[in-house]
Amino acid sequence: MKRNLLLSSLLLVAGLTSTAFAQEPVDAAMNAKIREEGLNHSQVMDIAFNMTDVLGPRLTNSPGLKRAQEWAVSRLLSYGLVNAKRESWGQKFGKGWEVQKNYAAITVPYYHAIIAIPKAWTAGTNGPIRGEVVLVKADTITDLEKYKGKLAGKIVIMEAAGLAPERAIRADMARYSDGRLDTMNKEAFAPPRAFGGGAGAPGGRRGAAGGQGGNPAMMAAMRAQRMRPIIANFLKSQNVAVILSQGRGSDGTVFTTNGASYRDTAQIAGAELETSTEDYQRILRLVRAGHSVQMEADIKTQFFTDELEGYNVVAEIPGTDKKLKEQIVMVGGHYDSWHAGTGATDNAAGSAVMMEAVRILKAIGYKPKRTIRIALWSGEEQGLFGSRYYVANHFADRADMKLKPEHSKLSAYYNLDNGTGKIRGIYLQGDTATRPIFQAWLAPFKDIGAWAVNANNTGGTDHQSYDGVGLPGFQFIQDGMDYNTRTHHSNQDTYDRLVEADLKQAATIVASFVYHTSERKDMIPRKALPTPPPAQAAGGMGR
Amino acid sequence: MKRNLLLSSLLLVAGLTSTAFAQEPVDAAMNAKIREEGLNHSQVMDIAFNMTDVLGPRLTNSPGLKRAQEWAVSRLLSYGLVNAKRESWGQKFGKGWEVQKNYAAITVPYYHAIIAIPKAWTAGTNGPIRGEVVLVKADTITDLEKYKGKLAGKIVIMEAAGLAPERAIRADMARYSDGRLDTMNKEAFAPPRAFGGGAGAPGGRRGAAGGQGGNPAMMAAMRAQRMRPIIANFLKSQNVAVILSQGRGSDGTVFTTNGASYRDTAQIAGAELETSTEDYQRILRLVRAGHSVQMEADIKTQFFTDELEGYNVVAEIPGTDKKLKEQIVMVGGHYDSWHAGTGATDNAAGSAVMMEAVRILKAIGYKPKRTIRIALWSGEEQGLFGSRYYVANHFADRADMKLKPEHSKLSAYYNLDNGTGKIRGIYLQGDTATRPIFQAWLAPFKDIGAWAVNANNTGGTDHQSYDGVGLPGFQFIQDGMDYNTRTHHSNQDTYDRLVEADLKQAATIVASFVYHTSERKDMIPRKALPTPPPAQAAGGMGR
Repeated sequence: MKRNLLLSSLLLVAGLTSTAFAQEPVDAAMNAKIREEGLNHSQVMDIAFNMTDVLGPRLTNSPGLKRAQEWAVSRLLSYGLVNAKRESWGQKFGKGWEVQKNYAAITVPYYHAIIAIPKAWTAGTNGPIRGEVVLVKADTITDLEKYKGKLAGKIVIMEAAGLAPERAIRADMARYSDGRLDTMNKEAFAPPRAFGGGAGAPGGRRGAAGGQGGNPAMMAAMRAQRMRPIIANFLKSQNVAVILSQGRGSDGTVFTTNGASYRDTAQIAGAELETSTEDYQRILRLVRAGHSVQMEADIKTQFFTDELEGYNVVAEIPGTDKKLKEQIVMVGGHYDSWHAGTGATDNAAGSAVMMEAVRILKAIGYKPKRTIRIALWSGEEQGLFGSRYYVANHFADRADMKLKPEHSKLSAYYNLDNGTGKIRGIYLQGDTATRPIFQAWLAPFKDIGAWAVNANNTGGTDHQSYDGVGLPGFQFIQDGMDYNTRTHHSNQDTYDRLVEADLKQAATIVASFVYHTSERKDMIPRKALPTPPPAQAAGGMGR
Repeated sequence: MKRNLLLSSLLLVAGLTSTAFAQEPVDAAMNAKIREEGLNHSQVMDIAFNMTDVLGPRLTNSPGLKRAQEWAVSRLLSYGLVNAKRESWGQKFGKGWEVQKNYAAITVPYYHAIIAIPKAWTAGTNGPIRGEVVLVKADTITDLEKYKGKLAGKIVIMEAAGLAPERAIRADMARYSDGRLDTMNKEAFAPPRAFGGGAGAPGGRRGAAGGQGGNPAMMAAMRAQRMRPIIANFLKSQNVAVILSQGRGSDGTVFTTNGASYRDTAQIAGAELETSTEDYQRILRLVRAGHSVQMEADIKTQFFTDELEGYNVVAEIPGTDKKLKEQIVMVGGHYDSWHAGTGATDNAAGSAVMMEAVRILKAIGYKPKRTIRIALWSGEEQGLFGSRYYVANHFADRADMKLKPEHSKLSAYYNLDNGTGKIRGIYLQGDTATRPIFQAWLAPFKDIGAWAVNANNTGGTDHQSYDGVGLPGFQFIQDGMDYNTRTHHSNQDTYDRLVEADLKQAATIVASFVYHTSERKDMIPRKALPTPPPAQAAGGMGR
């Protein structure tokens, strides 16, 4: 304490205004142990290798996710954690689904196997098929009529824009400059427009810029957008063999999504392939120009309905302080992925870092005051379901804001889900009372790139489930890397994209944050409790 | 003539030293016509669309190339060219080959269809197969012994380096700055080290930097390099189902080559898949770590032996000047491609530009003094065969340097084969007497980016066949774009990569060069004739 007062005086002399920065204790000896274990004896790449290469894609409720959850439970137990388990959401998610065969090729005018991925929760082709590609163009419902009865057994393609010819003029990969982080730090806090929104994250999902007015191209795009579900419904009724849709991405990279609902009550939708832009555009150019294009395909997908509930993985390092052990520090990240890659940066990276952080703390023999709990969520990709149900079960339901007893016991939740980039700082989500604490905790890690404490929100991932019910839930600021350009939801989200040095750095910093949160005299300060939202506003959990 | 003398005086006043620059006549009225046709009524993208999307890959002696050659003959005739034909090299090339089915997937530990391309001239799998992946590691011939009799029906993989984690920190695409072109112009002429070499081309193939000494990693790499053909031979004898080899590239992009000889006398090599780095490394990491990996594959390739000779396409616009019509101006580019893409930038781009250039000249009603001849080569990818045999048949054989009568009649040959990038200038290949001529001809195109006249050589393509026998053969300087990073020989070399504005610009400039070469009082100045090389030096045409 004396040392800190001295340091505080020195900082005041140096002209710094925040004395709180200096008063927040930092345990240098423990940080040194954590750094030694995290940077020089890391297992984060082995954890990530298992989560990706060994276990494969982890789509929510797929056999792959279940396998990966069982592996995580067993690995966490091996680190000495307790109460490790798959914990039910207490709610249905829906059907499991996986790809069991994926082959498609052009056969006329010449042979060419295409790069394409079955959309999640769509059906297969019931064995090998061959058919002609038909371009369906419909600006109105009347336009659709002419295709009635003519599409059975056909492969359907629709109009879509091609690549910009000089799309590759920018590098895939970027890190934040210190100057950019500093500018972001100075931006005023802007509350999110709605639950689920966000701002400023390197990997955040931004809404489309809302343009207005009568631009003809935009009007046409809006018409096309409105027609899309109508066409989709029509095609379902026409016994089409395969629908081709253009995936985002280029160079053989395809970003994937779902093509039908995962709900157990949903109708099965026909086979639909998210096709690489280059292959899609080639077929489209040919049929547009009146050339006959024939294809063959053999798509097998499998649905699983034996376990409709959703599950997260949780495990603990129990607290040892008589007074504080009932209190909790949580870390987590979502573990579920899309199906085309192995979800390496989204989000084996965050999951592996969190598992490594608790491993580090066990490895150095740390006995925490407060209980440390790790959670690996599922259903994040479909709407943050795993964390939202967990928060509703344990802390408070956002719909009514009735607080459960554990609500008063959670000090903080730390989340990681913006790819493989190292930690550069943390978003406060407007919880500015925490600023001097995090500034003090980050200061020892400036040498490895982390220092920014940003008042703002970032959206799109599971800390929002906590923030939404007035709990301190934080997502770290990470270097963006090639998350948005190349890996996020794509077939190229594989182990190759993981940057070892960055994951080691992140696990080290998270372990230090967890340590200091667990040891801290008081819990992390909170914002004012939010008011319950109007009945509809908390929705969006269905599809 | 009067106008030019005046201009020359003005330039002298302005301090320019080269009066030749001003003396070389430029026909502004004809340039205006060519620009109008080339920039505002272009058909270059339609030509390129046919060459790529419609006709498919054009591997030498494949049915695809033959189809494309027949199309080019017919299209050139439709432009009003004469003597259009497939012209035999007068030499055997070897077998035709094409892919007729291409499917491969991991099935254990989970299902994942891989991105992989059969290596050219390798066999298929004789229907669907399934097998275990075996890692073959052999530093010595003795090491190989332990695999004897154990590889039948297996899928074989070998050690290979993975991706650099921050490989994507540079943009795929680049254009030359004027400053860079200027610096290149100032570089002293450096004669090529050997026939086939080259320097400074944006798309040129550079030799590996020759390091020396006992670096252990380098020694290991050299050992591995030496072992490669020994292992390949061994695998051939072991009845392996499929060999996986790692293709260059990332993000789903795979660069391809051949895996066996195209010679009609060559033994058929087993199935070999050039596998995307990410898929290759995933499998490699798994088997390295002791995990069982099983795969299924169904590869069908077809050989064609009915036509072993090689063919080029040639066509002419006959000269009309009584004295000069026996003289020739040639344009060309190679038309053959690798098989994974549709050879859009390598080299439908150059072929389409050359076809468009002669189309422009016909469309504006030009009656040339000298005869204009276009040639679309084949066998370039295997050793500039098409152009070398053509030059040997028509002008001179590099082996003995005995000149044929036509040798004295060729004014110049202009080649285009460095991708989709626009023309920024021209390489003189040391023929510096031509500098003021090309400077004058390029001057009117400075507004669209072309001006650099570079004394140096550039290698790797068909102008070398002319240059090698003392004929003026030139390759234009083109913006590099994403040729080396993404398209050159890859599965992503498709129509999408073609930049319309650049191809229009190039065709316009080529048409103007051809016009001025055809009209010029004298032929293009020549360098001294080369001496015949020692018996071996002209070789390298076999494999």
